[in-house]
Amino acid sequence: MPAYATNMRLKFPIVALGLEIITIILYGVFVVYDDGKSKGHGHGHDAHSNDTEPAEPMKLYPMFQDVHVMIFIGFGFLMTFLKRYGFSSVGVNLLLAAFGLQWGLLMQGLWDLHDGKIKVSIYKMINADFSTATVLISFGAVLGKTSPVQLLIMTILEITIFAVNEHLVVEVLGVSDVGASMTIHAFGAYFGLAVARVLYRPGLRNGHDNDGSVYHSDLFAMIGTVFLWMFWPSFNSAIADPGLPQLTAVINTYLSLAACVLSAYAISSLVEHKGKLDMVHIQNATLAGGVAVGTCADMNIGPFGAMLIGLVAGTISTIGFKFLSPILASNLGIQDTCGVHNLHGMPGILGGLAGIVAVALGKKKGPSAAMQAAGLASSLGFGLVGGALTGLIMKLPIWGQPPDQNCFDDSLYWEVPEEEEENEESLAHADHSKNKAEA
Amino acid sequence: MPAYATNMRLKFPIVALGLEIITIILYGVFVVYDDGKSKGHGHGHDAHSNDTEPAEPMKLYPMFQDVHVMIFIGFGFLMTFLKRYGFSSVGVNLLLAAFGLQWGLLMQGLWDLHDGKIKVSIYKMINADFSTATVLISFGAVLGKTSPVQLLIMTILEITIFAVNEHLVVEVLGVSDVGASMTIHAFGAYFGLAVARVLYRPGLRNGHDNDGSVYHSDLFAMIGTVFLWMFWPSFNSAIADPGLPQLTAVINTYLSLAACVLSAYAISSLVEHKGKLDMVHIQNATLAGGVAVGTCADMNIGPFGAMLIGLVAGTISTIGFKFLSPILASNLGIQDTCGVHNLHGMPGILGGLAGIVAVALGKKKGPSAAMQAAGLASSLGFGLVGGALTGLIMKLPIWGQPPDQNCFDDSLYWEVPEEEEENEESLAHADHSKNKAEA
Amino acid sequence: MPAYATNMRLKFPIVALGLEIITIILYGVFVVYDDGKSKGHGHGHDAHSNDTEPAEPMKLYPMFQDVHVMIFIGFGFLMTFLKRYGFSSVGVNLLLAAFGLQWGLLMQGLWDLHDGKIKVSIYKMINADFSTATVLISFGAVLGKTSPVQLLIMTILEITIFAVNEHLVVEVLGVSDVGASMTIHAFGAYFGLAVARVLYRPGLRNGHDNDGSVYHSDLFAMIGTVFLWMFWPSFNSAIADPGLPQLTAVINTYLSLAACVLSAYAISSLVEHKGKLDMVHIQNATLAGGVAVGTCADMNIGPFGAMLIGLVAGTISTIGFKFLSPILASNLGIQDTCGVHNLHGMPGILGGLAGIVAVALGKKKGPSAAMQAAGLASSLGFGLVGGALTGLIMKLPIWGQPPDQNCFDDSLYWEVPEEEEENEESLAHADHSKNKAEA
Repeated sequence: MPAYATNMRLKFPIVALGLEIITIILYGVFVVYDDGKSKGHGHGHDAHSNDTEPAEPMKLYPMFQDVHVMIFIGFGFLMTFLKRYGFSSVGVNLLLAAFGLQWGLLMQGLWDLHDGKIKVSIYKMINADFSTATVLISFGAVLGKTSPVQLLIMTILEITIFAVNEHLVVEVLGVSDVGASMTIHAFGAYFGLAVARVLYRPGLRNGHDNDGSVYHSDLFAMIGTVFLWMFWPSFNSAIADPGLPQLTAVINTYLSLAACVLSAYAISSLVEHKGKLDMVHIQNATLAGGVAVGTCADMNIGPFGAMLIGLVAGTISTIGFKFLSPILASNLGIQDTCGVHNLHGMPGILGGLAGIVAVALGKKKGPSAAMQAAGLASSLGFGLVGGALTGLIMKLPIWGQPPDQNCFDDSLYWEVPEEEEENEESLAHADHSKNKAEA
Repeated sequence: MPAYATNMRLKFPIVALGLEIITIILYGVFVVYDDGKSKGHGHGHDAHSNDTEPAEPMKLYPMFQDVHVMIFIGFGFLMTFLKRYGFSSVGVNLLLAAFGLQWGLLMQGLWDLHDGKIKVSIYKMINADFSTATVLISFGAVLGKTSPVQLLIMTILEITIFAVNEHLVVEVLGVSDVGASMTIHAFGAYFGLAVARVLYRPGLRNGHDNDGSVYHSDLFAMIGTVFLWMFWPSFNSAIADPGLPQLTAVINTYLSLAACVLSAYAISSLVEHKGKLDMVHIQNATLAGGVAVGTCADMNIGPFGAMLIGLVAGTISTIGFKFLSPILASNLGIQDTCGVHNLHGMPGILGGLAGIVAVALGKKKGPSAAMQAAGLASSLGFGLVGGALTGLIMKLPIWGQPPDQNCFDDSLYWEVPEEEEENEESLAHADHSKNKAEA
Repeated sequence: MPAYATNMRLKFPIVALGLEIITIILYGVFVVYDDGKSKGHGHGHDAHSNDTEPAEPMKLYPMFQDVHVMIFIGFGFLMTFLKRYGFSSVGVNLLLAAFGLQWGLLMQGLWDLHDGKIKVSIYKMINADFSTATVLISFGAVLGKTSPVQLLIMTILEITIFAVNEHLVVEVLGVSDVGASMTIHAFGAYFGLAVARVLYRPGLRNGHDNDGSVYHSDLFAMIGTVFLWMFWPSFNSAIADPGLPQLTAVINTYLSLAACVLSAYAISSLVEHKGKLDMVHIQNATLAGGVAVGTCADMNIGPFGAMLIGLVAGTISTIGFKFLSPILASNLGIQDTCGVHNLHGMPGILGGLAGIVAVALGKKKGPSAAMQAAGLASSLGFGLVGGALTGLIMKLPIWGQPPDQNCFDDSLYWEVPEEEEENEESLAHADHSKNKAEA
């Protein structure tokens, strides 16, 4: 065990405070409030701005708050399904997202400077929240097997690489990806899977006692699931062009998710023992419709088309959890704690493919099907290569890493309260029975 | 037990996927995006549309999201109070609502076709969410005693009947029911009670071990309660006429709910043992003010009037839980798991009556008191008769139904995780004490 | 124990219903709907109104709902961290806030009468919600050690005193305090600490078995933390001037909170045993940045300035929890259950001081630094003196007060369900082992 440096004292505070202080200095140099006088907001959404003071600088604020809830409640609670890893799930999620949004605003803003400054607007805050989603997806793949210091390193690197890929795909290639099936979901999933591969732990080949849920931890996770499910139309439409395109993105996502629920439930029952439903599928595969409809959310695919995408996404996601994840773990050494491959990876690729088809069919003016395909390839490539390199850096012993037997266990990094009161009482009763027995 | 077909394998996937595929085909034929060029949105709210592209197709979106949260988090978690039925409560709630909103959009839209098409707008999505509320209310009456297949059948039938009654009441009779005390709450409650009556289980006459809460399940339920309580002003005002009528609906609901909390707490303490508060009352009766003020939410009843309605609603709801529900169960064979009669039934009728009085007193121009009364009668009639017929169909053995001893138990339809870790530890301790005792 | 009158029957219903009925009568006399024809909304925000019907009476509604969520979910669940006090935390929070908003609307409205009437608008509803925040902060200081009747008395008195101080500070002195660091946070904290001092319990000097968390209660509390954290930008900007000032308030709060997370985590790890994180710090100190940036949220302090404020706030808050709270309890007799001094007290003062500096540096036109200082002094003075007097009134035996051994225990005022099912099973197993042992 001496190889593991699990004591975070000094190491973690130094990294966390150091990164924050560097960030604040960069903000002092580069970041100012939006004054509405700049043109363009990135993503080619010039419609959001003009040369005068913005008439409604707060217009996107409700959308921003929906996305904010997805990032902090949605992702945070979705990962609390593990029986003894809830503090880390929701707590480290908060840490990574709070740092990530600051870093993301810088990394994305560098491509859109005005007089050498990044001008913060609600639009930029939404994109900053988006950039953290990539990290939280990857976090799901390595959940329970990494230290907070490792994860802060991953946050910096992944968001930096994300910003490069997103700029390339959206601005340079002119790809349409309004709900970010490719640039966030597929990218984040394969990045996380590559990290997980590099950090492969043979010692967990046969599972781990704490790598599972208890009854109430599954209910906490459903808080995350349902908030993600409800607000996904905001995620996919937040940066769409105002007016009918934004409405289209909302409707397509709403209907895709609704159809996806039915297929996720149906397939879960079909593949499980005695036709029972499996919480893992319900918590995750019901969301695959939101991922998969992302790229073509603002395209004229028709309500019917959106529902078909959702139906397929719920199906492949559930099947992935049941049949593919075990194979990835045993044959490829990819231990994907939350099954992000099934929720974000495959549905993200499906989204990219659907976008290629939709563009080829002329469902949106502007982008070309070839460029859409290049955007998907780029996102997968940046994700896999970036994740592998990041995994190698994360593997350096200096960052600390939990030993196998302490994986999936909050008590390594958190003060965990004494056992439940009930338990103390049952112990008391057990003692009582002992005394009786002895008498 | 051979009479019960509880294994859902094949049966559930076939029904769920079959319904979804039929729905997608219907959407392919009938449903298109709103282009803002149609007139009218149902409910006589022509003010929302005009002949040109809508200036703000997303204007109602924050309202929609509030309603969405009520449907999926509010109703879902409100029902998690049962100790061993949380997966079904929040999970089946998601299933029924996700299917129901697709079906509701079709059923409501058929009354409002444009060139043979249903045009989806945020306004229609709000109404689709509303239509699912009737099912979720009825679900509360039969919670723990029905299979997911039975409930999908109920969803189809109830929403279809709801759409007929709502069209009759609102469009044909010209009744004012902005917050739907009559068309959703009273309708849904008496529909559910009629179903429960038809599905009466003598074997549960003396209660069931699992028909109760544990400490943390009551806290999960409070998540539902508080989200419903907070966003009820959005429910009651979402489809009100824009401007001051919508503001009035918000204020009346906000104040009615606030007053209702005080009376629910006061009466709970008054009727309970030693003046203690009862979580069942707090989780439910605090919301009765939102139900009861629904019909006249947009009427000029005065803040004072809204608060009086809330005060009375909280009182009768709490008294209903304490004294009326046991009588309904023992004398009339109506086993109402969540007490929807107290939260939606009686307060819904109170809301209808308050609407009659308010209209008679001229608090809103347009509707007539006689028509308001007819609307209440129609909603109750459609609910009771529709529920009874639906109950008979649900009783067909083909759909499966849990045996008495497996009621209120997730493990019949869900993979439920092993016991809590604490328990394993206490078992270990118990074993330990045993060993000691043997030694 | 005869000195304690813990049975709430009659006493609580009479007080609760009596207060509500008096309130309804006052509403009948004084309160009408906003018709948009009045000038001014208090806080000098004339920009919100004009002489004609308001163009957008619902414009602030999404902001209002965010604040609403903070009050009812945020404060309510934040306090559920105690292992056996969750019903009271979220339930009494609902009771106090529901009554408090009615009372606050009256008390604040009396300073802003139009033709002898208070005109309810969304703006006034936001301020009414704000007024309850003071009570909920003070509630945190005395959590677990007071009866619901005592707390209703506190609600009336505290909101009345708050309305006087706020009018004096904001309207008379012309102080700028958009996010209310001084008038809500510092005021509410020192009010609560003064009450706690007066209600000092020597019997709890050495702690109490129930004054701690269990694993899942800490997760429930995180629901509160994260919702407060996410929507704090709405709290600090809700009543800011529309347009860019409101945008500035959002950005400053967003960035202050993000920076604050990093310092709270870093310092928590630095001061805790083996560098572990402490849930108490994470649940609370991560929010200090929202409190501390409140006064100058709408000032031109720069993103960099906001982040510095957040960094310092997270640091002093965490240090306060670790080192100062124990000293306050043992040396000054201030038993601060939730540590409101660390989350609202010190960060509130920091916010006031930051406001003085920002105004002195010309970051906002209008207010004077001297008046800002007077506003801080006034808020502290009204809080401490008002709290002390209120504490004396709350100490009257007539209101009931829990005996020491029943502190932090829901079962005194609530029907609490039987033990967890798991426990029963482990008892069964224990019995089983007993039988085996006896055999």
